[in-house]
Amino acid sequence: MSTLYLIPCPIAENALHTVPPYAQEIARDLDVFIVERAKTARHFIKSLGPNRPIQEMVFVELPDSPSSWGGVGAGTEEAEAVFHEAVKSGKNIGLLSEAGCPGVADPGAAIVALAHREGVKVVPLVGPSSILLALMASGMNGQRFSFHGYLPPKRPELAKELRRLENLSRQQDQTQIFIETPYRSQMVLEVALESLQPNTLFGVAQDLSGVGEFTRTLTVKDWNKSGKKTLEKSPGVFLVYCGNKDFSK
Amino acid sequence: MSTLYLIPCPIAENALHTVPPYAQEIARDLDVFIVERAKTARHFIKSLGPNRPIQEMVFVELPDSPSSWGGVGAGTEEAEAVFHEAVKSGKNIGLLSEAGCPGVADPGAAIVALAHREGVKVVPLVGPSSILLALMASGMNGQRFSFHGYLPPKRPELAKELRRLENLSRQQDQTQIFIETPYRSQMVLEVALESLQPNTLFGVAQDLSGVGEFTRTLTVKDWNKSGKKTLEKSPGVFLVYCGNKDFSK
Repeated sequence: MSTLYLIPCPIAENALHTVPPYAQEIARDLDVFIVERAKTARHFIKSLGPNRPIQEMVFVELPDSPSSWGGVGAGTEEAEAVFHEAVKSGKNIGLLSEAGCPGVADPGAAIVALAHREGVKVVPLVGPSSILLALMASGMNGQRFSFHGYLPPKRPELAKELRRLENLSRQQDQTQIFIETPYRSQMVLEVALESLQPNTLFGVAQDLSGVGEFTRTLTVKDWNKSGKKTLEKSPGVFLVYCGNKDFSK
Repeated sequence: MSTLYLIPCPIAENALHTVPPYAQEIARDLDVFIVERAKTARHFIKSLGPNRPIQEMVFVELPDSPSSWGGVGAGTEEAEAVFHEAVKSGKNIGLLSEAGCPGVADPGAAIVALAHREGVKVVPLVGPSSILLALMASGMNGQRFSFHGYLPPKRPELAKELRRLENLSRQQDQTQIFIETPYRSQMVLEVALESLQPNTLFGVAQDLSGVGEFTRTLTVKDWNKSGKKTLEKSPGVFLVYCGNKDFSK
């Protein structure tokens, strides 16, 4: 009987220590991998010191298209074929994204869904997730929260969406979480500080588990008064909260 | 300068291996802890083999009341006093819940918020979260999701809320996640299978990282046809998805 292991990868440079040894050991013993990018996956598996040559292992990539991030369909045929082949011969399979946890703000869910449909056991392994670490570090409401992926890239649409999330946070008493590419971090901060209400909490978490780790939550008012206003160009998670619990007093 | 470390604890029995060694080492070197429950926190720190007697460490509990789960306020005064005392003497502080990640479906956010207000550095450490593991293992949409904590305990209200989450999932293309106490798992499954649409995906994740780990996602139709219908009385995360991506074909 095959098992599909969901293998987390480090989210910062030189941060292999954030992947617990038991997860590393499981990954080291596999030889069929369905991955976001073969090059980085091979590099990761090599760094674990596998017992067999990497050339004897199978690495198949998930397609790059957005459709592969969610639904089964366009482009996953090759990965699905490798999955079925492995299941037929009773081999276990590893699912890896480039960084963090497969299937969470990363490709992979389609293969997990396939495993459930085929009755293949699914085992998620513990490791780093920027979304989870950012939420922990925000001090915002962790009893109710919502993750939205990427917001619109252009300033006017971003401002509008931030105000929508602010309203949603107030109405639903929910922390609203989103991500952005490194080079847009500064723009996100600027638009947030211009668009949100003075008492709304805005949180930034960058390069989590890395040497440049930065986490800060302040009210918009306090960001404008005293907060760090120049963000590094590193991977960032952003959080908005103005629910009914007073974290800002 | 003090740092507030957010320390994850195992979510299953005998699962210390799910907390990476670097997080264990940081926890072992601290001697001021703000915790959900002192007894379990002492037990956890003892299991790490600290260099000093446990009696020389400070453990202060967060209040039990729901208000402490989110906002600063009622009952956190003692923990806040310990926090201020530690910061004054330049000591680092550890924040721990009973299981999993502090501040995420667990108390602790109020202390993190306090740290941000006081300009104390906040460092979240990697470790197990049942919500994150359940989402990974669900095969549902991990690009957009929402966590709701506990749903209403009584059958009619639970059915109504499940149907609301189903609609929300469809409208927002979001995975909807909630938790329930072990002894109500079976009831949740029954009510879900009675209340949700046949093609809606329903996911169950129990005893994650434990010996009784169980993860399964099926359409409501397939749960009714062939799924495991008797759930163990173990801690459970439940997921609902009927967004616009076809995971069910």
